[in-house]
Amino acid sequence: MDIKQHPTLSYKKNKLHLSGTCIHSITKELKTPFYLYNVEALERNFLNFSNCANDHNIFEPLVCFALKSNPNLNLLKSLKRLGAGADIVSGGELKQALKAKISPMKIVFSGVGKTEEEITLALNSHPQGIYSFNVESVEELEMIAKVSKKLNKVARVALRLNPQVNVKTHKHISTGGKSHKFGILKSDIEGILKNKKLLKNVLLVGLSIHIGSQLTCLKATEKALKELSNLALACDQDLEFLDVGGGLGVPYHPDEPLSSIDEYMSLVSTTIEKYYTSKKGSHQRQPRIVFEPGRYIVANTGVLVTSVIRTKSSEENKFIIVDGGMNDFVRSSLYGAYHHVLPLNKRSGVLKASHVVGPICETADSFASNRELPPIKTNDRICIGDVGAYGFSMSSIYNMREKIKEYVIDKEGVLISHK
Amino acid sequence: MDIKQHPTLSYKKNKLHLSGTCIHSITKELKTPFYLYNVEALERNFLNFSNCANDHNIFEPLVCFALKSNPNLNLLKSLKRLGAGADIVSGGELKQALKAKISPMKIVFSGVGKTEEEITLALNSHPQGIYSFNVESVEELEMIAKVSKKLNKVARVALRLNPQVNVKTHKHISTGGKSHKFGILKSDIEGILKNKKLLKNVLLVGLSIHIGSQLTCLKATEKALKELSNLALACDQDLEFLDVGGGLGVPYHPDEPLSSIDEYMSLVSTTIEKYYTSKKGSHQRQPRIVFEPGRYIVANTGVLVTSVIRTKSSEENKFIIVDGGMNDFVRSSLYGAYHHVLPLNKRSGVLKASHVVGPICETADSFASNRELPPIKTNDRICIGDVGAYGFSMSSIYNMREKIKEYVIDKEGVLISHK
Repeated sequence: MDIKQHPTLSYKKNKLHLSGTCIHSITKELKTPFYLYNVEALERNFLNFSNCANDHNIFEPLVCFALKSNPNLNLLKSLKRLGAGADIVSGGELKQALKAKISPMKIVFSGVGKTEEEITLALNSHPQGIYSFNVESVEELEMIAKVSKKLNKVARVALRLNPQVNVKTHKHISTGGKSHKFGILKSDIEGILKNKKLLKNVLLVGLSIHIGSQLTCLKATEKALKELSNLALACDQDLEFLDVGGGLGVPYHPDEPLSSIDEYMSLVSTTIEKYYTSKKGSHQRQPRIVFEPGRYIVANTGVLVTSVIRTKSSEENKFIIVDGGMNDFVRSSLYGAYHHVLPLNKRSGVLKASHVVGPICETADSFASNRELPPIKTNDRICIGDVGAYGFSMSSIYNMREKIKEYVIDKEGVLISHK
Repeated sequence: MDIKQHPTLSYKKNKLHLSGTCIHSITKELKTPFYLYNVEALERNFLNFSNCANDHNIFEPLVCFALKSNPNLNLLKSLKRLGAGADIVSGGELKQALKAKISPMKIVFSGVGKTEEEITLALNSHPQGIYSFNVESVEELEMIAKVSKKLNKVARVALRLNPQVNVKTHKHISTGGKSHKFGILKSDIEGILKNKKLLKNVLLVGLSIHIGSQLTCLKATEKALKELSNLALACDQDLEFLDVGGGLGVPYHPDEPLSSIDEYMSLVSTTIEKYYTSKKGSHQRQPRIVFEPGRYIVANTGVLVTSVIRTKSSEENKFIIVDGGMNDFVRSSLYGAYHHVLPLNKRSGVLKASHVVGPICETADSFASNRELPPIKTNDRICIGDVGAYGFSMSSIYNMREKIKEYVIDKEGVLISHK
């Protein structure tokens, strides 16, 4: 339970604070379980990210927040005010981004399964459509061209390269391998570039990569950036941008070895300079760099607050049964992910190894196994940490439970509920 | 793609039928993706189950359908008409069972996290409350007694034994081990039986077990039934019922070795006779047997129908990208489960190994890898088979997709949508 170095969670007089706000005080009237986010943390993360890009002289960085990690409207509006764009993967996410007043000219649309309906919606959202469709197959390019033609538009597209790298992350969220459904192989992209018929009714404005999520090592990223740069050089046209995707990991576990944002930006900057800009010649137009972070921006801004229904002893096994379940937060079950478990009011006493489990009738419904925790009693409130990303967005009502609620602490420290 | 022996799916003139109804004909106007269930299959499965119990002279069997597998109201109403009770795990499921007019005297309430609010709701649903709270810990028993006292009621309870058996199924859904959160250890139950204070305001009416879901081998079941019988003998009072739980597996994969319903009922009947009834003496009141099947009743009654958005070739990898995703049906991702993938209209041609994937931006969003399939083209409709259990009930709107719809073919072969 070591959170001494945690960027947003800390104890003050044994009361847990989220980015400076006492969680107990601000939420004691709310019925558990619920998600709680702090805008102050969100904005800090976003500015860290974009300032760091600028510090490393990255050209005109456009930071497109990945809505799939957390599409909460209040959070999106805050990010929009700071200049964020959006990385979307569905018509629903497009509508949400537009609702937050994010300009279509800052929206990139990723995903292997874009439908005609969704492509139409995106093209109709602005005279020029959206900033970019990140195209995942030749077949998708043909569909976008067809819809563009029908609407009498020219769709802005980027080709997503499958760089054939395998990265060290959970197999569910590694996306840059050859057998993965994402992206286009280099040889197929070269084929597209040679076949001008395929590029009718669309405007090739960029290239993109995305090799996975929760990446903890930058080796694969470097290799992918090199592949991207080489491919960009091979294009006989200027590109408006290179989209380097998202995926920067966050330290869910205190011992997780992670690259810093500084190392990441340094790598992006130097690799693209070395393999692309320097070879291209300085008289050429330089492409802007598009980023698609989700987890990095939002993971540590949120907690799930849940109450202890009861404790249970079964010989050597101690269970803490809480009212939040795997339907509310699935990462622990789906990816076996580690997350902090922290009482809102820390009692003094001897630490005891406990299983923290939910009410769902599956053994997988567990937030922590044999975790050393201070004394915890019935009706105590505890929180699961770092759940701002892929928390609410993946929640369900399995077991016919009520849909979990979301609350946001705004910049003035006032609690607002999600509308 | 061998479905020749499948109980509900078959091809007639290359058109896929679900329990005799042509899926294409009855659903061609519906927008994909959606779930489709056939009541005819559901009723057949239920009657198979309860008739088989009767054939094996199981005493007054009460078949409580596990709502967590599929709480669709139309299906519940059909089961209710056949005499089914309900196995529920939340206040939401209680309300749904009551909405289907299932009598509270046929409802058993399982789960480790019952809250005061849910216990109150259950006790107030009938003068006698519900048929049984299946109690999972001493601490829960105390809470039920407290609520009963407050409401001036006597709660009917069964103690759920943790039989300390580990069964061969996916680790997420094995529930009878000592380190699992479910049930009470034998020694703790013996403690309860000796401590009459704990049994004030409640009426001990039964004992229960439940060792997991999708069980494919009956060895562990036999051991658990023996433990249950021994414990029942040790009670110095008559029990109204023994609840033997659910968990009977279904053959998702054609090669899956499975016990038949006949073998299962035979085992239940003989094991309880051997270790309990015969020892208890025939002058004693015989307990009725309660069952909690979910998957067995409903899995093969449903399919997920999805359209091919596009196909994609990436060197040797062939992808079939469909408009249904892991948010709509999560078993393949969460448990790595095998499910049939079948075109509604089978084209002739050479089989080709393909990956069938959804539009969600995760590599886990895959329904099948390297599956041998006949030729499949854009806009073809295909179905994922045997998804009636733990399909819709576990679905979410991840990636801000629309909530997937459900349709039911009623006994007259007419399509009704789920209200």
